[in-house]
Amino acid sequence: MYRGLFISFEGLDGSGKTTQVKMLYDYLIEKNIPAIMLREPGGAFVSEKIRSIIMENDISPYTEALLYAAARAELVGSVIKPSLLAKKIVVCDRFIDSSVAYQGYARGLGAENILNINKFGIGGLLPDITFFMDITPEASLKRRENATGLDRIESEGLAFHEKVYSGYKDLFLKFPGRIHRIDALGETVKIHNEIICFIEKQLFKD
Amino acid sequence: MYRGLFISFEGLDGSGKTTQVKMLYDYLIEKNIPAIMLREPGGAFVSEKIRSIIMENDISPYTEALLYAAARAELVGSVIKPSLLAKKIVVCDRFIDSSVAYQGYARGLGAENILNINKFGIGGLLPDITFFMDITPEASLKRRENATGLDRIESEGLAFHEKVYSGYKDLFLKFPGRIHRIDALGETVKIHNEIICFIEKQLFKD
Repeated sequence: MYRGLFISFEGLDGSGKTTQVKMLYDYLIEKNIPAIMLREPGGAFVSEKIRSIIMENDISPYTEALLYAAARAELVGSVIKPSLLAKKIVVCDRFIDSSVAYQGYARGLGAENILNINKFGIGGLLPDITFFMDITPEASLKRRENATGLDRIESEGLAFHEKVYSGYKDLFLKFPGRIHRIDALGETVKIHNEIICFIEKQLFKD
Repeated sequence: MYRGLFISFEGLDGSGKTTQVKMLYDYLIEKNIPAIMLREPGGAFVSEKIRSIIMENDISPYTEALLYAAARAELVGSVIKPSLLAKKIVVCDRFIDSSVAYQGYARGLGAENILNINKFGIGGLLPDITFFMDITPEASLKRRENATGLDRIESEGLAFHEKVYSGYKDLFLKFPGRIHRIDALGETVKIHNEIICFIEKQLFKD
């Protein structure tokens, strides 16, 4: 009855992605639905090593984009594809859309360039469903204002996050079948229920 | 009188590349010609970290190709471009042709794919001169037979190195202006002199 399903969560920092990823994963496990929870960049042994290089060093935007693509290629090959073949639900905190929004739009490297280097790495595997947790750059900044221990990318200013946001909105228009927009300013439990309802329709539609 | 010049050395393992890189660098320094010597993957702080990931882990061919491109992008941005702007001679042990030959041909990922992800990272910066140290796969294997401490790629068998070799030969035909073939079975000092003569022509031609 179940089939492997690949679900990604996207959005600005502070949009509640990580909370919703965890809630969804806990829900699936509680329902005895085989699932795994991943974060990007990272999620696999080598990908976590690549993540450290990205987070801890002052690298060029080109190096950054290629390292994200490399970490993703490894995650797809070693974890996501085998899990989908084993009919698991894969819940991933960020995937290719993050690279397009952050590197393609905000760093100005070009959406097409970023799509191309990533398509090479992942062999065309896109998520079945992507939840775009929509909060404005201003709301994102406000939520991060009191946070400590921000990484290199989280610490970028409003102008940077405005470009990321416009990238996400373009992607949402470009992939309306895959990307489902969520009003991320809503109540956490309500959002969780909206996500569950949407996924159940997918799970039982065939 | 001098201008920055970017020289790469390519060829199978055991072709004497590294020896010639060192001899050329020593020669330039002795002549008071500003020069730097680099190796790939590596040569910059972050690139050496990426090198460790490539060498020490069992990664997918796609991850490998993207990591090589990332290490190269960082080396170009942080070392090669600034050095060329400072009118130095950059002597590099392997560059983009290695990725095309090893990943594109031998790993079967496609020469065009590898060229594309690398062009993105290096912004079109190709070497001015590439010395292709030509030895056959059989000679390469023979020279490596008694070596110890071979890395993951050096340990590949004859069939793999035959594909690498055919990649190099195709590249040599494709870029006859940039790639200069050297008979790498010749005497070390004779080869060194051939290289010096060739470079001096370039240095003094404008």
